[in-house]
Amino acid sequence: MKVADRPHSSVPAHSPAKRGRRQGPTRTREAVLDAARRCFGKLGYEKATLRRIAAAAGVDPALVLQFFTSKEQLFRTAVRLPQAPSTLQVAGLTDTSRDLGSRVLHAYLHLWESPDAGDTLTALLVSAGTRPDALQAIRHHLRDYTIQPVAAEIGLDAQQTRIALTTSQLVGIAYVRYVMRTGPLAEASVDHLVELIAPIINHYLTGDMSGQDVPAMNPAYNEKSVGS
Amino acid sequence: MKVADRPHSSVPAHSPAKRGRRQGPTRTREAVLDAARRCFGKLGYEKATLRRIAAAAGVDPALVLQFFTSKEQLFRTAVRLPQAPSTLQVAGLTDTSRDLGSRVLHAYLHLWESPDAGDTLTALLVSAGTRPDALQAIRHHLRDYTIQPVAAEIGLDAQQTRIALTTSQLVGIAYVRYVMRTGPLAEASVDHLVELIAPIINHYLTGDMSGQDVPAMNPAYNEKSVGS
Repeated sequence: MKVADRPHSSVPAHSPAKRGRRQGPTRTREAVLDAARRCFGKLGYEKATLRRIAAAAGVDPALVLQFFTSKEQLFRTAVRLPQAPSTLQVAGLTDTSRDLGSRVLHAYLHLWESPDAGDTLTALLVSAGTRPDALQAIRHHLRDYTIQPVAAEIGLDAQQTRIALTTSQLVGIAYVRYVMRTGPLAEASVDHLVELIAPIINHYLTGDMSGQDVPAMNPAYNEKSVGS
Repeated sequence: MKVADRPHSSVPAHSPAKRGRRQGPTRTREAVLDAARRCFGKLGYEKATLRRIAAAAGVDPALVLQFFTSKEQLFRTAVRLPQAPSTLQVAGLTDTSRDLGSRVLHAYLHLWESPDAGDTLTALLVSAGTRPDALQAIRHHLRDYTIQPVAAEIGLDAQQTRIALTTSQLVGIAYVRYVMRTGPLAEASVDHLVELIAPIINHYLTGDMSGQDVPAMNPAYNEKSVGS
């Protein structure tokens, strides 16, 4: 699915919670959390005011405070990730018919593509540079849901370095695709991305760290002498 | 150099511009810009108030406004990158004794390691998720100083995709090393990072896009059957 087509790619002017017709408190609470995730992801923590979040959810700002006490608390609740990885993700990670890199990348991208987790993760990535709690949350997320399930499989040297390199590529794709939202990586299908990037994740996780096993030269590529 | 050792890794409590002893306007202006870059990079645009920036520069907030009119304008001026790439960068990019991936990564990391550009780029990366001008600036920076100098060398298929993949890995390293500042990638030397990641950049720029040329399997790695 194209990112531009995703229903949460902008903060909507209207909301599913119509004024005048009262919803149950649970549905209203969920509507506020959804609006909060979209606003934090699009505007960042500081600019996503309670007033804006309330407007996006179609409720009164006082009601938001009544539910969540403070913006700080709302942020913490909104960006809390599900405690257990989804069935889809587990299915992806345990599908042994594919290499480790494909499985990791597939599970990771499917999580980002799911509307709930995707909004939450984007909000965290956008806020991680300036909010230690967001940084902590996305770090824990990467560790618990992406790295730990595969770490047991890498019985190799330099495990920490392998995990860090994998993280750098995973964070980089998410940043270009879901935050910058530009270029071929924002428009590509998940399957195409897996095809392009899984060999790299696989190399980082299981390859020769001296880089001797990446014969990157395409026969069609003739290096020009830039200096002459 | 370890990131933690970098002088700008936290906003300093004191400032080189001592009160009581007047500096020339040019030096004061530069001190404000330096403080602004550090504050925007550490706190993000919203939290980096004029008051905090002025305190970090050791000047009166009124003086900051006198120089830069508004916080908006200060941000634009502070994160304006040098118009021409540094000699170091050009030297790195034209050193034909090394492969294209090494040259690109070396030039890129050396720019991030330089105190001036590094602070500016970190400020941009932290703000790019929520500020279109920061997003535009870092995109232009990547294009003009990192991608365009090498694009002419890639006379291959899928040039846009190659550039996007390269960007995702470059942005990912910068994010993990300079924003998240954790793990082996934050502590590694530039040379070690080039050693680890250049083969990947080289693959993205010049390799076989079907991934057939990345034999990521280390002989020491024995894939376990997770399901059984």
